[in-house]
Amino acid sequence: MDPLRPRCEHPVRAPEADRIVRSARTGPDGSVSLSRFRTWFAGRVRERKARVTRAPLDALSGWAADPETGDIGHASGGFFTVCGLDAHHPQGPTERWSQPIIEQPEIGILGILAKEFDGVLHLLMQAKTEPGNVDGAQLSPTVQATRSNYTGVHRGKAVPYLEYFLDPPAERIIADSLQSEQGSWFLRKHNRNMVVEAPDEPVPVLEDFCWLTPGQVYELLGEDDVVNMDARTVLSCLPLGAGGDPDRGARHSMTEVLSRITEARARTGMSAARLPLASVERWHRTDSGAIRHESGRFFSVIGVDVATSGREVRQWSQPMIEPCGPGLAALAVKDIGDTPHALLRLRAEPGFREGVELGPTLQCTPENYRDGVLSPPRFLDRVAAAEPGRIRFDAVQSEEGGRFYHARTRNVVLDAAVLDAPDDDPDYLWLSYPQISCLLDHSHYLNVQARSLVACLGTALLP
Amino acid sequence: MDPLRPRCEHPVRAPEADRIVRSARTGPDGSVSLSRFRTWFAGRVRERKARVTRAPLDALSGWAADPETGDIGHASGGFFTVCGLDAHHPQGPTERWSQPIIEQPEIGILGILAKEFDGVLHLLMQAKTEPGNVDGAQLSPTVQATRSNYTGVHRGKAVPYLEYFLDPPAERIIADSLQSEQGSWFLRKHNRNMVVEAPDEPVPVLEDFCWLTPGQVYELLGEDDVVNMDARTVLSCLPLGAGGDPDRGARHSMTEVLSRITEARARTGMSAARLPLASVERWHRTDSGAIRHESGRFFSVIGVDVATSGREVRQWSQPMIEPCGPGLAALAVKDIGDTPHALLRLRAEPGFREGVELGPTLQCTPENYRDGVLSPPRFLDRVAAAEPGRIRFDAVQSEEGGRFYHARTRNVVLDAAVLDAPDDDPDYLWLSYPQISCLLDHSHYLNVQARSLVACLGTALLP
Repeated sequence: MDPLRPRCEHPVRAPEADRIVRSARTGPDGSVSLSRFRTWFAGRVRERKARVTRAPLDALSGWAADPETGDIGHASGGFFTVCGLDAHHPQGPTERWSQPIIEQPEIGILGILAKEFDGVLHLLMQAKTEPGNVDGAQLSPTVQATRSNYTGVHRGKAVPYLEYFLDPPAERIIADSLQSEQGSWFLRKHNRNMVVEAPDEPVPVLEDFCWLTPGQVYELLGEDDVVNMDARTVLSCLPLGAGGDPDRGARHSMTEVLSRITEARARTGMSAARLPLASVERWHRTDSGAIRHESGRFFSVIGVDVATSGREVRQWSQPMIEPCGPGLAALAVKDIGDTPHALLRLRAEPGFREGVELGPTLQCTPENYRDGVLSPPRFLDRVAAAEPGRIRFDAVQSEEGGRFYHARTRNVVLDAAVLDAPDDDPDYLWLSYPQISCLLDHSHYLNVQARSLVACLGTALLP
Repeated sequence: MDPLRPRCEHPVRAPEADRIVRSARTGPDGSVSLSRFRTWFAGRVRERKARVTRAPLDALSGWAADPETGDIGHASGGFFTVCGLDAHHPQGPTERWSQPIIEQPEIGILGILAKEFDGVLHLLMQAKTEPGNVDGAQLSPTVQATRSNYTGVHRGKAVPYLEYFLDPPAERIIADSLQSEQGSWFLRKHNRNMVVEAPDEPVPVLEDFCWLTPGQVYELLGEDDVVNMDARTVLSCLPLGAGGDPDRGARHSMTEVLSRITEARARTGMSAARLPLASVERWHRTDSGAIRHESGRFFSVIGVDVATSGREVRQWSQPMIEPCGPGLAALAVKDIGDTPHALLRLRAEPGFREGVELGPTLQCTPENYRDGVLSPPRFLDRVAAAEPGRIRFDAVQSEEGGRFYHARTRNVVLDAAVLDAPDDDPDYLWLSYPQISCLLDHSHYLNVQARSLVACLGTALLP
């Protein structure tokens, strides 16, 4: 019996979809060559250095712990709060735990401005320094602004190019959805991921900005710590998979995919409630004034003092999350019939608004399992031991440098043959690229680690 | 310039989609005639009476207020809790308020079993009595079960037909999504709305159950208090609008629709946090042991003792929400070109998981505005004064009778000519029926009042 009906079939206006795909396939050619870009970017990195010094959480200018709850907040009431979380995951490896988490209720804009030059779409990328980055400036979206940034809580400079994203005419919107961020570190946070085409008049290019084609950005994604997380998540929302019936050649129909996600959300029963930071158990202050889990696993909440020449504000202090080791995110791919598929995993994280989203095949911090106390996640051994010949993409990239300190993830795309990949495990789903693209029109289906890997795939999985 | 690409184009497998639409268009014919149904249903109503008596909240067997927070919960820890909510709506008519709200974190199943007889799809409907219903039994989905119902917290009978919904084969799933319920009365509640086709073998029809065609159910929707809220929301998810490009003839492209929803969610900044019920301001205990707003507006939290012969448990007590007056929900429709459109409103409600969903053109409790203190919502006067000739649908229906006591809403579909309908108000959106259907493949786009009206529309807006 055939599915009753597939959902979400993609575009009829193929010429428009084609234009985006064509621009994504240009490779290293653009109105600026990649070698000229590198010279420019190296200059930006030199110019926009940040000096970041660790400081005790109690000594951060502008920040204080609430005497009652222990929650660490900014005097302005803006930015974000480090509070506690009571997580309940009835089906999970740990049924109940508490932890520190970042709460930042406001929705920011991550926006990339696009414009056609000589028939090829270009993206206006920014060299932006964040305190958590290992090597200073990275390639960022045109606009990367929390509401505090542009409503003045930050008391900084105006956000350049913001006006293109505040009320764009409908016909210039290429992508616009709310997407989650790290569900283990952020409580229900999501940002607005936008790609907007600029109007026909010229767009001034400011000092830290540069037009690159999507193809050039894909090229740069192969290098360590160049394209930042915010740029990766916005890139993943480019509708490259558009242009046909997403069910064609796909392992599962979209009806089944949506139903499997619904089922996982209903079954998992993940719930999470805010808790006073002072009530979090097994997390303690260290001698250096940070907050750490008694086992040393997971992450620490640390304080930093920052001095930079490239940000809206030149000196500030803030809490950050520092993971206990680098992350590993791997996406297994294979052809089913003639259609390339990727293996996504239904994943519960306490900070997800819907409890469950699709993550990569494997997502973990290997350091957590080194002492053998916690059982390692499925496939960790196989991914770690994968031969180079099986690996199609391999780069280390940074997580959001505004909140996470030296949080780096090795992003790997590899042949599914490396795993004994499950075909009947209810937690895993094989999706074609058009189906992934279809899900990314909407909010909260793919987590930020999966979106990063989708960006890294570039056009590799396109039919 | 054309939109870059439309999203979510609908099915290629038109024969399957057609089958559902054809069944929906059958009108009052089915394997049981409507007159036979009425005789049967009247018998069920007689048989399944519930005796519901008001009782003080402090005297409900099995329920108690937490001495610290005042939250009212069940001794088992199951069912639901009446707690407090601190709502913050920076752009709203009231910027900040607190109120009682129901928290029920578990996800229930609202499932309708479908089966083809003589080439026409039938739905297995249930005559089910709920304590909040005005006239006893109403037509309900095949399965209407909270997790407590079927995992035993309720200590009641097994839920009949549940097995068809627990692990249905993908090819038998017609609809499966999580949909929100009343965002003013429920905190982040959503239920799984499912339509599943039964396998080929015969399905036994139990005493309180009856096969009806969608067309017959649409006929019954025109009568007051017959089809319950749970049935209406599941019916709204039937993919009737499937079968073509949802952008064809539509006022806005799907890209624009999704972007407008994203924008409203980002702009509104609605946030809501749980609060101890004891900390809610301006709500007080009444002499009869209920909780009421000092103005008498909005709703009360009351207690009831229930005795029934038709439910899984024969006697129980529980808190319920009793609104201060009947609700009014109106959907304005008109043709734009040759394509019928409905006017949806982007609406913030504190209990929505995403802050904003699409509601009807008008949704309110008129009683709240009778004393002239609060300004009435847009269109209330025009809808109230609409001439009968302008009204296409008009019936009073009950909200969820398991949680809401005598909560009835007048559901109205009327010609948009009655309003001076806005074409540029950012809070309103004209959607075609295929677009509405496309949104209902996913979760949390249409609120329960809008979904009720979509069910009431039946096939009226189909091209």
